[in-house]
Amino acid sequence: MTAKLLNSRDTELVERARRVVPNGMWGHMATRAIAPGYPQFFSRSDGCRVWDADGNEYIDFMCAWGPNVLGYRHPEVDAAALARIDAGDVGNGPTESMVELAELLVDTLDHADWTLFQKNGTDATTACVTIARAATERRKILVARGAYHGAVPWCSPSLLGVTAEDRAHIIVFDYNDAASLDAAVDAAGDDLAGVLLTAFQHDVGKDQHLPQAAFLAHARKICDRTGAALILDDVRAGFRLDVRGSWARYGVKPDLAAYSKAIANGWPLAAVAGSERFREGAGKVFVTGSFWYGSAAMAAAVKTVRILRDSDALAHTETMGERFRDGLSAISARHGFKLRQTGPAQMPMVLFDGDEELKIANAFCLAALRRGIYLHPKHNMFLCAAHTPEDIDRALEAADGAFGDIVSAGILAA
Amino acid sequence: MTAKLLNSRDTELVERARRVVPNGMWGHMATRAIAPGYPQFFSRSDGCRVWDADGNEYIDFMCAWGPNVLGYRHPEVDAAALARIDAGDVGNGPTESMVELAELLVDTLDHADWTLFQKNGTDATTACVTIARAATERRKILVARGAYHGAVPWCSPSLLGVTAEDRAHIIVFDYNDAASLDAAVDAAGDDLAGVLLTAFQHDVGKDQHLPQAAFLAHARKICDRTGAALILDDVRAGFRLDVRGSWARYGVKPDLAAYSKAIANGWPLAAVAGSERFREGAGKVFVTGSFWYGSAAMAAAVKTVRILRDSDALAHTETMGERFRDGLSAISARHGFKLRQTGPAQMPMVLFDGDEELKIANAFCLAALRRGIYLHPKHNMFLCAAHTPEDIDRALEAADGAFGDIVSAGILAA
Repeated sequence: MTAKLLNSRDTELVERARRVVPNGMWGHMATRAIAPGYPQFFSRSDGCRVWDADGNEYIDFMCAWGPNVLGYRHPEVDAAALARIDAGDVGNGPTESMVELAELLVDTLDHADWTLFQKNGTDATTACVTIARAATERRKILVARGAYHGAVPWCSPSLLGVTAEDRAHIIVFDYNDAASLDAAVDAAGDDLAGVLLTAFQHDVGKDQHLPQAAFLAHARKICDRTGAALILDDVRAGFRLDVRGSWARYGVKPDLAAYSKAIANGWPLAAVAGSERFREGAGKVFVTGSFWYGSAAMAAAVKTVRILRDSDALAHTETMGERFRDGLSAISARHGFKLRQTGPAQMPMVLFDGDEELKIANAFCLAALRRGIYLHPKHNMFLCAAHTPEDIDRALEAADGAFGDIVSAGILAA
Repeated sequence: MTAKLLNSRDTELVERARRVVPNGMWGHMATRAIAPGYPQFFSRSDGCRVWDADGNEYIDFMCAWGPNVLGYRHPEVDAAALARIDAGDVGNGPTESMVELAELLVDTLDHADWTLFQKNGTDATTACVTIARAATERRKILVARGAYHGAVPWCSPSLLGVTAEDRAHIIVFDYNDAASLDAAVDAAGDDLAGVLLTAFQHDVGKDQHLPQAAFLAHARKICDRTGAALILDDVRAGFRLDVRGSWARYGVKPDLAAYSKAIANGWPLAAVAGSERFREGAGKVFVTGSFWYGSAAMAAAVKTVRILRDSDALAHTETMGERFRDGLSAISARHGFKLRQTGPAQMPMVLFDGDEELKIANAFCLAALRRGIYLHPKHNMFLCAAHTPEDIDRALEAADGAFGDIVSAGILAA
């Protein structure tokens, strides 16, 4: 094993945090949800690299859990946002940036005739559900079992603090399973407001599955027939797989879609984009927030989306994902481990066969961390346009060392 | 009347926006919700001034609807945030700024033993409700009739897209009415999770009312007796009336409180602050968001709260509010109008007697706008620390002219 990380600063911050924050940390960035031994606090990020509070440097494969798509501190994106901050960010109304961004998204997304902006992905998915209900005057929303759509009572992965009524009109089906969807549609009867689907199946701790084109077409047909809204939750994958929206390659257009994370390369923003048929419904509902009209994040999004349109950033990211996937596959096999690498290469999920309790994954990720790469043992990871072939090769070298480390420590393939 | 505002740029942006945004604009910043003739788009803000898209300058009395408390583009606050952006804002975890802010809030707020951070005020109020339910294992939340707590289904001012079940466990009572609160408590029976109150009664279009100390003490006693959470929604008033929390002066401590708006002087942030008794419940619930751990807004909040603690900014703001209130009272009387000015002077509500349809208010505000002050005809307004006596006096001069304008145009007191 390599030496333990320097982590005295992190330990000190964790101890201070425990006094003034329940458990020291909450939500998806709590390290207890990642892997034992991970640093909780960071000091810096740049391109595809992050530095923890003790100054340890990592090649990063989480990209802030999705917001980073072009590289941290992208100079053009940040300059666009900072110009708006210099003029004044939040005010008594939006600036021209809002119109520019709305026009750009309507021009770029293959399904959008209009947009609305928010701050959180959950704001956008919740607005989609509210718009679908207002437009259809119906109540039932169909969601795939195990899908993550946000962290509020109607969709939270936890039931603590949630009442049964919060989900009274949620009906579940299985992703990519047309018969299961049909059964849910039947259960909704004449009260079907919408069918909500993530861009692909990216449930935590499970193999990822791309959507089957026939399944998406089937869902589209159901919504056409019933008048319900086909809702794409593209919060995690949007502006990372395809700048036109993640279903553009399948030729299936959602009625409503939720975007966030990568849309402004780290500046806080979310968006709902919808079709003409739902414009009136979207104009009826009351959705708002104190910071939703701030122009800095909108200017950052304009620049981000333009770069994604005009450059090969996303194709490059996919290539880097494939380079990492292929390399990891070969290296792990050499060390006697069998990996399952699923989903889009630029949003890789890496799981070990027979490792339900994540013993191998946690040991491997921690060993990799000590060798300078930041991976996740059970959540999909993210690559960004700042990853270079050299970064990937260095990361693979570290992974090779990490497999050696865990084998030396007696961790064996299942 | 003075000349019509230059507004060709605003008109052009409004027309463009209508094509790509339902109704051209949504939420509380849609000018159709303000007064006819108001500009929809802005270009710049500084101190207590805003400039619309056509470059018309206004002395501002809305302060971005609350976020601006120290003055737009406050150099120290923005420098603190920009230093974090320069190092990298969102990452794979929080930075030391989170710990600093949590420690500072626990030290500053009179009721807080711990904190959690979010982006929207609605995130914070929703988290309070979820924590109250998780901690008490009960469901009923009591809210004051007409109070605004956010724009999601359980609390939205609109019922469009909302189902009955979204409010199945919400029971209403009347603010400052102990008997009404008692009746709601009785209705909740042994299922009372929390009592949710805004800092004072600040419902749109109505006279504002400060909380009666005896009413707050009564609510506190009910929660002590039943184990329910007393929840303060301090989103609008927090860090504007009293840096210790808006109920500190009444000696009543909430169990949970929601903050946002002014907490970071315009940088997007919200916070839940709670008591020891609810720490465990807060540690149980799953609440999170993609941008909740970004350090720029947290660094901005640290600086904002420190300035509010260490300076006379809030006392000065109150003095400016009183100067404006007193001046407006005298001027309006001279022109034959009777105003009702209610609530804290730094968050003034100005309504005209006998003006239920807002004909006088809309005419007056538009006339004032044309003379360079930005007022609101039916929502509480906001003053900030950047307002100087000279700004207030110039605003009063404009108001004087505006009253003359509307009288000349035949608008008479009711």
